[in-house]
Amino acid sequence: MARWEPNAPRRLVLAALDLFAEQGYDNTTVTQIAGRAGLTKATFFRYFPDKREVLFAGQQVHSRLLADGVSAAPDSATPLEAVAAALDALTASFTAEQREFAPRLVAVIADNPELQERATFKRAALAAALTSALAKRGVPDLTASLAADLGARAFGRAFDRWIEPSSQQTFTEIAREELQALRTATASLG
Amino acid sequence: MARWEPNAPRRLVLAALDLFAEQGYDNTTVTQIAGRAGLTKATFFRYFPDKREVLFAGQQVHSRLLADGVSAAPDSATPLEAVAAALDALTASFTAEQREFAPRLVAVIADNPELQERATFKRAALAAALTSALAKRGVPDLTASLAADLGARAFGRAFDRWIEPSSQQTFTEIAREELQALRTATASLG
Repeated sequence: MARWEPNAPRRLVLAALDLFAEQGYDNTTVTQIAGRAGLTKATFFRYFPDKREVLFAGQQVHSRLLADGVSAAPDSATPLEAVAAALDALTASFTAEQREFAPRLVAVIADNPELQERATFKRAALAAALTSALAKRGVPDLTASLAADLGARAFGRAFDRWIEPSSQQTFTEIAREELQALRTATASLG
Repeated sequence: MARWEPNAPRRLVLAALDLFAEQGYDNTTVTQIAGRAGLTKATFFRYFPDKREVLFAGQQVHSRLLADGVSAAPDSATPLEAVAAALDALTASFTAEQREFAPRLVAVIADNPELQERATFKRAALAAALTSALAKRGVPDLTASLAADLGARAFGRAFDRWIEPSSQQTFTEIAREELQALRTATASLG
């Protein structure tokens, strides 16, 4: 077995984003990504099943943070208050470095329909994690699913605002604003 | 050019579903689908870009029916009332034959993660069609998007109920019930 490589997943993500930006997603191979990161192909495959998943590496960790955030909310919290707690937990986990490379990530995905489908699926997976955590609190399924969708939307909208170079607020502050805006909009559905 | 083949898309869909059920999605080729339908591969490619899209053939027509349904709703309709009109238009377009082959369609998709991603993307595309039709009526973007999501959810939930062999109601009746249930659930988000 190869020896442990410090920060291997992070190095692979950054190398992949560089290569995707330089030569396109379709033209980039796993061998090239590993080489750019100074790692072997075998190391790549210890962390990611294929080059696509490099772009969606956070999905499992993000789902867990959301689920744990819901579980940790006080018993008295409404469904949307529990979702707000989950978004606090998730957004607090993002680093300045993630913010820095996010525009490249977004650009690669926007340029490729297959990656857009994968991104839609990731969002659905995050919403599913929220839904099941809410259901465990006794929230009825349909309400849990709607609250989760508002949470996933708030997260996506907040992410887009947070990665703007001009943005001054924290990711958590922006996510709270977005969730509140969505809550207000639900009152005007008729 | 090949001559016009009556009902070619429908024949191809039915042939594909038969083959996917018999031998699996992954093991089925476009050549086999065309052969089973008594058509050429060239005819297949006039209607579908690949075997996957056979399963999602309705996406464009469904999007148009939803958009037209929203546009045709009275000026006085609330966002959710316009969505209800769109669902009426869409659900009325489904045939008894579609209901009959739906369980096979659902089973193939449930068995394949790539197809599940594609199905999630189709739902997002339907919601996007509703959203832009609502925005054209002057509904604010965020409200339009939420109303559209409720419409897409109601459609999906109603579809699952409608294709149950024991179901007695029309697709349209079921979709109205589901949209109403979602509307009620939004009131309990907190």
